Amino acid sequence: MSDAPIAARIDGVAGSSLPLLDRGLQYGDGLFETMRVVQGRIPLLDRHFARLAEGCLRLAIPVPPHAVLEAEVAELAALPGVGVVKIIVTRGDGARGYAPRHGTTRRIVLALPYRAWPQAWHRDGIAVRWCQTRLGCNPRLAGLKHLNRLEQVLARGEFDDSNVQEGLLADSDDRLVGGTCTNVFARFGHAFCTPALDRAGIAGVVRGWVLEAEGMGASMEVREIGRERLAEADEVFVCNALRGIVPVIRLAGPEHTWPVGVLTRALQMRLAAAGIGHEVGA
Amino acid sequence: MSDAPIAARIDGVAGSSLPLLDRGLQYGDGLFETMRVVQGRIPLLDRHFARLAEGCLRLAIPVPPHAVLEAEVAELAALPGVGVVKIIVTRGDGARGYAPRHGTTRRIVLALPYRAWPQAWHRDGIAVRWCQTRLGCNPRLAGLKHLNRLEQVLARGEFDDSNVQEGLLADSDDRLVGGTCTNVFARFGHAFCTPALDRAGIAGVVRGWVLEAEGMGASMEVREIGRERLAEADEVFVCNALRGIVPVIRLAGPEHTWPVGVLTRALQMRLAAAGIGHEVGA
Repeated sequence: MSDAPIAARIDGVAGSSLPLLDRGLQYGDGLFETMRVVQGRIPLLDRHFARLAEGCLRLAIPVPPHAVLEAEVAELAALPGVGVVKIIVTRGDGARGYAPRHGTTRRIVLALPYRAWPQAWHRDGIAVRWCQTRLGCNPRLAGLKHLNRLEQVLARGEFDDSNVQEGLLADSDDRLVGGTCTNVFARFGHAFCTPALDRAGIAGVVRGWVLEAEGMGASMEVREIGRERLAEADEVFVCNALRGIVPVIRLAGPEHTWPVGVLTRALQMRLAAAGIGHEVGA
Repeated sequence: MSDAPIAARIDGVAGSSLPLLDRGLQYGDGLFETMRVVQGRIPLLDRHFARLAEGCLRLAIPVPPHAVLEAEVAELAALPGVGVVKIIVTRGDGARGYAPRHGTTRRIVLALPYRAWPQAWHRDGIAVRWCQTRLGCNPRLAGLKHLNRLEQVLARGEFDDSNVQEGLLADSDDRLVGGTCTNVFARFGHAFCTPALDRAGIAGVVRGWVLEAEGMGASMEVREIGRERLAEADEVFVCNALRGIVPVIRLAGPEHTWPVGVLTRALQMRLAAAGIGHEVGA
């Protein structure tokens, strides 16, 4: 399948290429959002926009005008065959030094097809393994969906094995941070826990949605999960805005298995009803 | 002064724009070299090429063919007005996940004018300050001149003060790593020291040149420099491939001053003779 975008807008203009001096290329000086499109609509759109705005504020990149971006996204989401809309915001042009003096923003909106994960992964669960690549800690960048993703690229490059579907990442102190492209939740008794992302990691919009889920019969908590402790969990899932919630049933390496959790299934169905992920039988 | 490149080649073809799906933009998935051009020639060119090749190997990006890249660089370096040639190498196109499966390389070569630092900085020295931004530690990326440079952008954004010319960066354990765009050397008695870059930082080509300098009356050593210890140095300089060697005479914040060192001056003149930096009177 071709990677070519179905459509693209650069600062509102149709196009397929970027000035070479863009700071997104030069320094990774920008942010992105990758959003699922379902029948022309984007679930959790407000959360995506809120995260992008927060990232712009933290990086001191002028926030793109909300109405303009919303209109561009809506226009591209409505095109036939579009299953994903990706926004990239950079600090504009400048290749002559790191100083972020430009008060400019460049916005790029890409319309792409959706590539589904197999239905069986959603239904029966996936296997994960620990990556050797660790995440460096930087509180100023932690949580942001910024363009500096080499750690994730290296981690994802560690496995190309049909028996493993996602890699788990620890920080330099051996604490779980998340998956290479997902956040991780683990239930211990009545508490569904996900790691704090104040030192490393990306604060996913589905993570935020899960943390606010009510009436699940479990508390949703941000809590440290040590590497060894994960095996003690009663159920585990990974999540992101393209795939939704996917049960984790196996850890490879030090072998461990978990059941597909009842609460995982309930959250998965609730999120699928909101448009993200598959509806699967309980 | 315009930022526009004098000329650019993308995979050997003249052009000024990049496909939007390039992984350099999408993930910072690539490397760069910024090289001084003096009368059509590039000092320390072999060191630049060696570092680029090492970076490609460590990131598992196919190394661009040496002869091809060398010819492109030579062609652009010979153009009128060119003072800097920048090479960017990315993993090619791909915006659908971090997996680095593409066996492709895209090479971008930019010809740019040189923007000199004031002669007085080279002659009389500059002032530095500590940045609050810390560098995260990641041994897999340490030393590489990769495209993930948000830490440097944030650090450089901390000062816009004509009294301070460079910022010093410490890692999360309070050890000096380097400047925002330079390496740092500090002499303690008979030892000229620069920090190890096995956890963070960029291994500059001039740093490598200095470490191999002989007959200076001082040993050149890779050694940890604690933040407090820097004030005990007898002389300090910063260096990079565009500016050469520049004395540091003042620390702002906790105030401290150093003299322009005799050995700094000797190294500076030796490197200037090789084409990088100004010839200044002793």
